[in-house]
Amino acid sequence: MTNAEMMTHERAAIVSIGDELILGQALDTNTHWLAQRLTERGIRVIEHATVDDDRARIDATLRRLAADVQCIVVTGGLGPTADDLTRQALADAMGQTLVEDPEGLAWLEAIERARGRTLTAQRRVQAQRPESASLIPNEHGTAPGIRGVVDDADVFCLPGPPREMRPMFEASVEPALRPPGGRVIRAELLRTFGLPESVVAERLGALMDRDANPTVGTTASGGVVTVRIRFEGAEAEAATAMEAACAQVRTLVGDVLFGEGETTVPAALVDALRTRGERVLVVESCTSGLIGAMIGSVPGASDVFLGGWLTYANAMKSAIVGVPPQWLDVPPGVPPVPGAVSAETAAAMAEGALRVAAERGIDAHHALSVTGVAGPGGGTDEKPVGTVFIARATRGEITDVRHFLIAGDRSDIRERSATTATGMLLHHLRGGTPDVMTWQMETT
Amino acid sequence: MTNAEMMTHERAAIVSIGDELILGQALDTNTHWLAQRLTERGIRVIEHATVDDDRARIDATLRRLAADVQCIVVTGGLGPTADDLTRQALADAMGQTLVEDPEGLAWLEAIERARGRTLTAQRRVQAQRPESASLIPNEHGTAPGIRGVVDDADVFCLPGPPREMRPMFEASVEPALRPPGGRVIRAELLRTFGLPESVVAERLGALMDRDANPTVGTTASGGVVTVRIRFEGAEAEAATAMEAACAQVRTLVGDVLFGEGETTVPAALVDALRTRGERVLVVESCTSGLIGAMIGSVPGASDVFLGGWLTYANAMKSAIVGVPPQWLDVPPGVPPVPGAVSAETAAAMAEGALRVAAERGIDAHHALSVTGVAGPGGGTDEKPVGTVFIARATRGEITDVRHFLIAGDRSDIRERSATTATGMLLHHLRGGTPDVMTWQMETT
Repeated sequence: MTNAEMMTHERAAIVSIGDELILGQALDTNTHWLAQRLTERGIRVIEHATVDDDRARIDATLRRLAADVQCIVVTGGLGPTADDLTRQALADAMGQTLVEDPEGLAWLEAIERARGRTLTAQRRVQAQRPESASLIPNEHGTAPGIRGVVDDADVFCLPGPPREMRPMFEASVEPALRPPGGRVIRAELLRTFGLPESVVAERLGALMDRDANPTVGTTASGGVVTVRIRFEGAEAEAATAMEAACAQVRTLVGDVLFGEGETTVPAALVDALRTRGERVLVVESCTSGLIGAMIGSVPGASDVFLGGWLTYANAMKSAIVGVPPQWLDVPPGVPPVPGAVSAETAAAMAEGALRVAAERGIDAHHALSVTGVAGPGGGTDEKPVGTVFIARATRGEITDVRHFLIAGDRSDIRERSATTATGMLLHHLRGGTPDVMTWQMETT
Repeated sequence: MTNAEMMTHERAAIVSIGDELILGQALDTNTHWLAQRLTERGIRVIEHATVDDDRARIDATLRRLAADVQCIVVTGGLGPTADDLTRQALADAMGQTLVEDPEGLAWLEAIERARGRTLTAQRRVQAQRPESASLIPNEHGTAPGIRGVVDDADVFCLPGPPREMRPMFEASVEPALRPPGGRVIRAELLRTFGLPESVVAERLGALMDRDANPTVGTTASGGVVTVRIRFEGAEAEAATAMEAACAQVRTLVGDVLFGEGETTVPAALVDALRTRGERVLVVESCTSGLIGAMIGSVPGASDVFLGGWLTYANAMKSAIVGVPPQWLDVPPGVPPVPGAVSAETAAAMAEGALRVAAERGIDAHHALSVTGVAGPGGGTDEKPVGTVFIARATRGEITDVRHFLIAGDRSDIRERSATTATGMLLHHLRGGTPDVMTWQMETT
């Protein structure tokens, strides 16, 4: 029994091999998948490395990582061609030569025989392994994996195609893992919308100390600020520590929290509407369908989503949902009127939608409208690109209209506007929308 | 002038930073994109490294790679919170302390002022950089990048969100690259829509031989089949070889070609409509706004896009665009009527839109409609999930309605339906839609 066989797999690294990855011709999804699996097992991944089909560089990478981790999972470079060099590089890193594995050879020959062919010299190299290494069976392809030991680190080499790699990992690597006894990693995502990342972080305060356990971190994307809570330690303490940290986060940012894990704002909105048996309409100008597309992307949206109007052209705003035409298309120099991008027009769009629907016997509770300047053209000093007005009209209530200045390019402005519209209604249903939301101008 | 400023960027490395990447919570797409861009410029990428939010490990990774390459592009870890450590780690690797950049500070303050807020201490750290480093402007977010030198390697640190990172790379990193002279890589993308990848590949035939130069390959995504043409060799031969290969491709698949580079079907449609001075409406059921969102994503869409109706609920289909209500909501056992998902309903939606618009004095030339079963529920033996009817109605012409069975999940079906709708009108304007398009049922 070697040291590696006794040693706990405290830390791990993942190595991907291939020119096509290094040159950006193919997107590596193996590493992401392997990182999830190792983390779930309580093994701490500290690095992902991708290197080209270069024997010396693969060798050097394995040796470097073996000094720092107890487990290395390698994908790629096990094929039969001249640019498949993982086999040789592993032998170099182990300080051994390659030998032919008799069982591996018999297995390759059997595969070829079943296809009515004989094994070529080129394919035969796939039966080779470093002297003290062993082959890992592959049920879904012709490249066996290889398991060896570099320094004291276990190295598992698997082929690159995910449909071969994944079952091999599950069948042969997972059972061989030795996660730290009782030590586990637990991670939770709590999702917030409505406040900027810096405000969320300020509220979380000392919870975000880097040496706390669980650690609490934030990431922002499209206005959604995700709070990541991550525990690393004894299994017996995991549940209590995670619950305590999650409870603290809920106390500090509960007002803008809308879900866990991968939940989206539109999905949470569909749920909240369904619970109340209420239905929503949309009236979109600069977002031109994005709010409808977001709500409609949620399976089962038809329970709560009726549809709506895309009033992109001003003629549609007046002719279809009744925005007064004299508010729109204002020639320069005329005394101030609201204009197509204004709080008044946003409110008229949302209220007009509820009115038109009622006239046609359609039972809607809420309407969300957006009008704005998504750019790149169309901005003025008074209403620069990013100026967006969003209204939520609810039957029998005063309409909530807000003025935003949204950062980013056309695509950012449109997506953030659509998410903000759904977020305004979601928070309203949940008991209250923040007074000042992300990107909102304080003086409307 | 330091050594780094004179040295050719022969070799490069890409570093991604973030716990969420290392743990497999987020998929890194930046590295793939950056690898493509560096490779296109003729710079040889030799390693991608992903490390967690650990100051010492980021520092060590930068130093290690700086000994081997002349250019390092780093993404992530530039936010304002305690787990954003790229700034400090770069300073460590440069052997310097962090100082506050006065221009960066003024820029951050101006952003906050424009939003009626003052800069918090937490956000203010984003103005910091190592002493001899410089900040890289960010037009799409609030985290400036940082450019420094470690050993003799240029290090460019950019924020993680792709929408910020990509334009920053193009505006500030690409112009600073110094690729080796002589040998070049040239790549062109020609984009087709309407035929399956296998048919496009068959037509291209021998052009796709792997040892040709330029090489020709295809990739399919969402119904768009992209033909990639890639030359690698002497600069003097590049233009002639690329022109000849592109001309051959145009001859073989010209009828379904709609653009070059990153052009999308909706962008080509907006161009084609603008050239003819024509305007389009949309009427969407299962896509619930995606066609409008796609067309509206094109800058300047307002020249040609009027808006439309989201008739997600059947009540909207009949009350708003006049689909006969007795066609919809059919109880089981009643003699066959078209139903909400049918060629008849799709045609009535598109024709109804043109009629309603005309009644209100809105000058529309074309209407595109979609009705279908996007799933996961709602499929029947007769109309399984993926059944989609798409109609193009054009003033004074016979409506073109087609029956599709689209592969994929809810999101695939919706996106592919929307792209197909825009593609049907695009090819009609360009002189003819293929008789049988990708996913179309031959017997309608």
